[in-house]
Amino acid sequence: MHERGILFVLTGPSGVGKGTVLKEVRGQRELYLSISATTRQPRPGEQDGVHYFFLTREQFEKKVAENGFLEHAEFSGNCYGTPAAPVDAQLDAGHDVLLEIEVQGAMQVHQKRPDAVRIFIAPPSFDELERRLVGRGTEQPEVVRRRLETARHELTMAEQFDYIVVNNTVEQAAADVLAILRAEKCRAARVQVK
Amino acid sequence: MHERGILFVLTGPSGVGKGTVLKEVRGQRELYLSISATTRQPRPGEQDGVHYFFLTREQFEKKVAENGFLEHAEFSGNCYGTPAAPVDAQLDAGHDVLLEIEVQGAMQVHQKRPDAVRIFIAPPSFDELERRLVGRGTEQPEVVRRRLETARHELTMAEQFDYIVVNNTVEQAAADVLAILRAEKCRAARVQVK
Repeated sequence: MHERGILFVLTGPSGVGKGTVLKEVRGQRELYLSISATTRQPRPGEQDGVHYFFLTREQFEKKVAENGFLEHAEFSGNCYGTPAAPVDAQLDAGHDVLLEIEVQGAMQVHQKRPDAVRIFIAPPSFDELERRLVGRGTEQPEVVRRRLETARHELTMAEQFDYIVVNNTVEQAAADVLAILRAEKCRAARVQVK
Repeated sequence: MHERGILFVLTGPSGVGKGTVLKEVRGQRELYLSISATTRQPRPGEQDGVHYFFLTREQFEKKVAENGFLEHAEFSGNCYGTPAAPVDAQLDAGHDVLLEIEVQGAMQVHQKRPDAVRIFIAPPSFDELERRLVGRGTEQPEVVRRRLETARHELTMAEQFDYIVVNNTVEQAAADVLAILRAEKCRAARVQVK
């Protein structure tokens, strides 16, 4: 029989570098990522079941009613959520699964899955996050301002997570995340002494 | 101001390979080890304050009465203990400290320092531990038999620890311990978000 996999949640404010850290982590360790469901229209090249599960609003709401999401939210008129069933299938097969999601979603997962291991990626400082977001130069100042406001609020929630990884450099942050993934496999509750 | 260091406790039954794993860990990461106090006579070459703090029984008992040990025990008519003060001095200076001690001692540390991170090194199986202990060929069969009896009891306590590292190979076990040391630095309670 397989040992059940571990559910990891990786979150952090917009602009903190979650995606880059995760890419580095996945280059060094096999890790199943969840696929989100959304009601927004597929963009060119996006495949159903690969990039997203594309659902109608009716299908999405039915799934919400059935408690079929680990977390869900609405952004700019579209619904997004993490379907529970594919995640559980991987966990049951003994694979660790990582959800890279927004901070609010991560809080929801904690309610539904208190055994999930939750990692918060934090910037070296708020000023540094601001520099990174402004420095991108791709967003309108108004959008940047709103993101920073959200980030300031989200950073106050960091202490509610299991781990806080400060993203000073991608290499250091990825090494921290990899250490957490490995250490959690050694948690006494998960190891059978023979 | 320094962040206070973390107190790690490494334990496991006799013959499980704690010392070898720890040597490998220390080759890859700086780590302060505690120095034990003992009432036994120094052996040739042993220096006070380096290999042990050598105390008279009277000095030892005074220290016990003053609650000056993190743990202490008597073996074959000699007292052994881990003096608290030097450990606290290192922790206060921001250094992580590791105590490599017997299972009973590790249980005592938990009482006095509930914030210590406790790692139990387990053999791949009880049979394998037996093979290793017998295979050494350095001990009398009676000594081996007693150690195995103790080990069998100690293994039932593993689940009370924070982590269980199964020593399949020295490299894997050392990597697990290193991951635990690194991950624990990222525990949310220990990280200040700026």
